[in-house]
Amino acid sequence: MSKISRRGFLFGGAAATGALVSASAGAAVGASLGAEAATEAANKANLTAVLKRRERFFGQHQNGIETELQTFTNFVAFDLKPETDAAAAARWFKLITDDIARLSVGEAPLADPTPQLAMGPARFTATLAVGPGFFDKLGLADKKPTGFEQLPAFNVDQLREEYSYGDVLLHISADDPIILSHGVRSLVRDSVGFAKVRYSQQGFSNAQGVVPGGVRQRNLMGQVDGTDNPEIGSSDFNNIVWVENGPDWLIGGTFLVFRRIAMQLGTWDALGRTDKELVIGRNLQNGAPLGKQNENDPIDFDAVDANGLKLIPEFAHIRRAHATNPTERIFRRPFNYEVGVTPDGEPDVGLLWTAYQRDISTQFLPIQKRLDQLDLLNKWTVPIGSAVWAVLPGVEQSANGDYLGKKLFQ
Amino acid sequence: MSKISRRGFLFGGAAATGALVSASAGAAVGASLGAEAATEAANKANLTAVLKRRERFFGQHQNGIETELQTFTNFVAFDLKPETDAAAAARWFKLITDDIARLSVGEAPLADPTPQLAMGPARFTATLAVGPGFFDKLGLADKKPTGFEQLPAFNVDQLREEYSYGDVLLHISADDPIILSHGVRSLVRDSVGFAKVRYSQQGFSNAQGVVPGGVRQRNLMGQVDGTDNPEIGSSDFNNIVWVENGPDWLIGGTFLVFRRIAMQLGTWDALGRTDKELVIGRNLQNGAPLGKQNENDPIDFDAVDANGLKLIPEFAHIRRAHATNPTERIFRRPFNYEVGVTPDGEPDVGLLWTAYQRDISTQFLPIQKRLDQLDLLNKWTVPIGSAVWAVLPGVEQSANGDYLGKKLFQ
Repeated sequence: MSKISRRGFLFGGAAATGALVSASAGAAVGASLGAEAATEAANKANLTAVLKRRERFFGQHQNGIETELQTFTNFVAFDLKPETDAAAAARWFKLITDDIARLSVGEAPLADPTPQLAMGPARFTATLAVGPGFFDKLGLADKKPTGFEQLPAFNVDQLREEYSYGDVLLHISADDPIILSHGVRSLVRDSVGFAKVRYSQQGFSNAQGVVPGGVRQRNLMGQVDGTDNPEIGSSDFNNIVWVENGPDWLIGGTFLVFRRIAMQLGTWDALGRTDKELVIGRNLQNGAPLGKQNENDPIDFDAVDANGLKLIPEFAHIRRAHATNPTERIFRRPFNYEVGVTPDGEPDVGLLWTAYQRDISTQFLPIQKRLDQLDLLNKWTVPIGSAVWAVLPGVEQSANGDYLGKKLFQ
Repeated sequence: MSKISRRGFLFGGAAATGALVSASAGAAVGASLGAEAATEAANKANLTAVLKRRERFFGQHQNGIETELQTFTNFVAFDLKPETDAAAAARWFKLITDDIARLSVGEAPLADPTPQLAMGPARFTATLAVGPGFFDKLGLADKKPTGFEQLPAFNVDQLREEYSYGDVLLHISADDPIILSHGVRSLVRDSVGFAKVRYSQQGFSNAQGVVPGGVRQRNLMGQVDGTDNPEIGSSDFNNIVWVENGPDWLIGGTFLVFRRIAMQLGTWDALGRTDKELVIGRNLQNGAPLGKQNENDPIDFDAVDANGLKLIPEFAHIRRAHATNPTERIFRRPFNYEVGVTPDGEPDVGLLWTAYQRDISTQFLPIQKRLDQLDLLNKWTVPIGSAVWAVLPGVEQSANGDYLGKKLFQ
C-alpha cells in the first residue's frame, strides 16, 4: 500500500478496524533510528534498582507466592467461553506461559503492540490458577481435586458476584504500576479469545523499600498484618503451602482462598486506640500480643489483669483466629484496595486477602468457622468477594515444551 | 468507665456509634511500651530514600505543581454544603492548611485516629484550588476572576458529571500508596463537615526511580508524554504558569485545566507503529518529531518526503497542538488512570490530564480549539471529565496565622 493511500485510509476511519497493516517503517521513522539506539543505551545504563529486580519464573512452584509483596497487584478472573474446549484451554495456557516467562524478565510478549512499556521486570509475577468450574466446563471432572468447591456460606458474608468466583485466575503483580498495567493488558489480550474477563481487582502495598525494617506492612486500619505467617522457604512453609499428595497435575501447586474484605473505617476510626487493641488482641504500634513485648512473642491467652479479666478478651480476633490444632495454619499475603469515597467521606477500602494452603478443608475452613461464630472484628470487616483456586505447579524449563497446566490436559 | 463495663459496651454494639471514649491506656497496652519505643527507633533508622524525600510546603506557590510526578495521585473534588458560608469555608481552609503542612513532613494531622500510617513524607503534596461555583455559593462574586467559568463544549467531549466540575479541589499525591491513602482520608475527614465529596479520581505514573534517564514518562499508549513543557523554575515556566496580575488573593497562584481523557487502546493497538507515529507526529521510541533525531529538536512542519508528502501529516497531533503564537503555551503534568477491563478485554484506561497556566482563555483554549477541529488522535482519545480550577497561592509561613486562601476571605 502506498504511503498516500495509507494516509487516506487512516484518515478515512478504517484505521479503527484493525485491518491496516503498515507496509514499511517509512523515511520519517528511519531518520531517527540513530538517536533511538543512543536513547536505548542510555535507558539500559540508567535502569534503577526497582526496575531491575526480578523474580525467577522457571521452577518447581509458580512465582507470586514465595514473593515479598509487590507494590501493585491485580487479580484478573476469567469465565471460559462455551466454545473453549480442553484443547483450546491448553493452547491458551501455552501462550500465557510464554508471555509470563518474557514479562518476568522485562521483555515484551510476542506481537506486543506497545513494546515500549516493557521497561524492565520490576519484580513482575503472574500466577495461573483454576477454579472448580474449570473442570466441569472442560470435561475434566476426573482431574478435579476431591472436595474442591466454593466456600460454604458464612454469616458474615455479603458476597457480590462481581468480586467472586471464576474459572481461571491470573494474579499479576509488579513494583511499578505502568509495568503492571502493560503486563495485565498483554495477558488479557492473549486470553479473550478463550474466556471473558469476569473481574479485575486492583490492590497495593507499600512502595518498595518503604516498609521500615522489623515491622511488617500495615493495612489501612493501621494494624501490622501478616504476623504468625510461616517463614518463606522453611520446611514449615513448605508443609503448609505446597501440595505433596493429590492429582499429579497439582503436585508442587497450592490452594488459594481469595477474600475481598471491606473495612468500615468510619466507625473503626471512632474507636480509641485501647479499644482497637482489645478488638484485635495486639498492640497497634508494634503488633505484640497484649501483655507481651514483641510481635512474635508467644500469645498468653490465659493472662489476666488485676481485676481478673483476661488481657486478651474472648471476642478478640487473635484468640478466635489462633489455631490450637497445629495443622490449622495458612500462609497469608494480603494487599489493600481503595476504590473511592462516598459523598460523606467514607472510603471504599479493604483487603484483597489471600491464604495459601495444601488443604482448604483442614487449614482455612476451621479458622474461618471460628471467626464466623465470634470475632468482634467482624463488626468492621465484611467479606464482599470470595473465590477458591487451585494454583498450578511451576514450569521447570521452557526448552522441553513444558507449559503451565500441561499435565491437566494429558 | 471501668474496664469491665467498657468491654460490655464494646461487645454490645455501641462501639460502632463512635460514642466510646477510652478512659485509660490499660495495663495490657502499657506492658509493651518499651518494645514499642525500640521498634519506633528502628523504624526511623530504616526510613528509606523513597519514604524520606519531601517537598517543601511553605513558600510563594503551593507544592504539587513544580514537582516531579509522584507515583500516585488522587483528584478529590467537593461540592460546598448549603449551610457552609464564607466564614465556615475559611475555618475549613485553615484546618486543611495545618493538615497539609504536617502530612508534607510525614507527621500525622491533629487527632488522627491512625497515626501509625503517617510513616514518612514520601513526597506528599496536596494542592488546594477553587472552582467557579465557589464564588457564587459563598457570596464572593466580587472576588471571582474575570471569565472564570467551565470550559465551552467541544465536539470531542463526552463528559460525565461524576468525573467533572466541583467547588473545591484537593489534588493529593505521594510516592507511596498507603501514605497517599492515609493523607486522602485525613483531608477528607476534615472536609466533610463543610462539603460533600463529588469525586475521587485516582491515577499513577512510574514508580520512583523507574523512569530511565533522558526519557520522560510514557502514557499507556506507549508515547513519551510531556515534551515541550517549560523547564520547571525557569523564567519561561514562571511566565507561563504563575498569575502576576489579577485578584490579590490569586497572585502566585495559577489556573488548572483538568481533563479525564479515555484512551481507546483496543483500536489503537491495532495500528502499526508507523501509523501511530503519523497520528502523533513523533517517533514512538524516543519522542523525536518525525524527520528529526531527538525529542527536543525543533519541529519542521514543512519537511516533505520524496513523494512531496509532508513528513508530519496535516492531521498529526503535534501539528494541531503546536502553538504558532508564543503566548499559547501551558505546563502539563499528566497522570495515568486504570479502572478495570470489560469482559472482552478492553481496558478502562486513560489520562488524568492537567494543564497549568496564568490565563486559560489565551493559553489552553486556542490549543484545544485547534485540536477539536482536526486532530486524528481524537479517534482514540475521548474527554470524559473536565474541570477548571483557580489554584491558590502558597503560604509563606505558619507562624503569622497565614493559611491557604486567607486573602479570599478578607
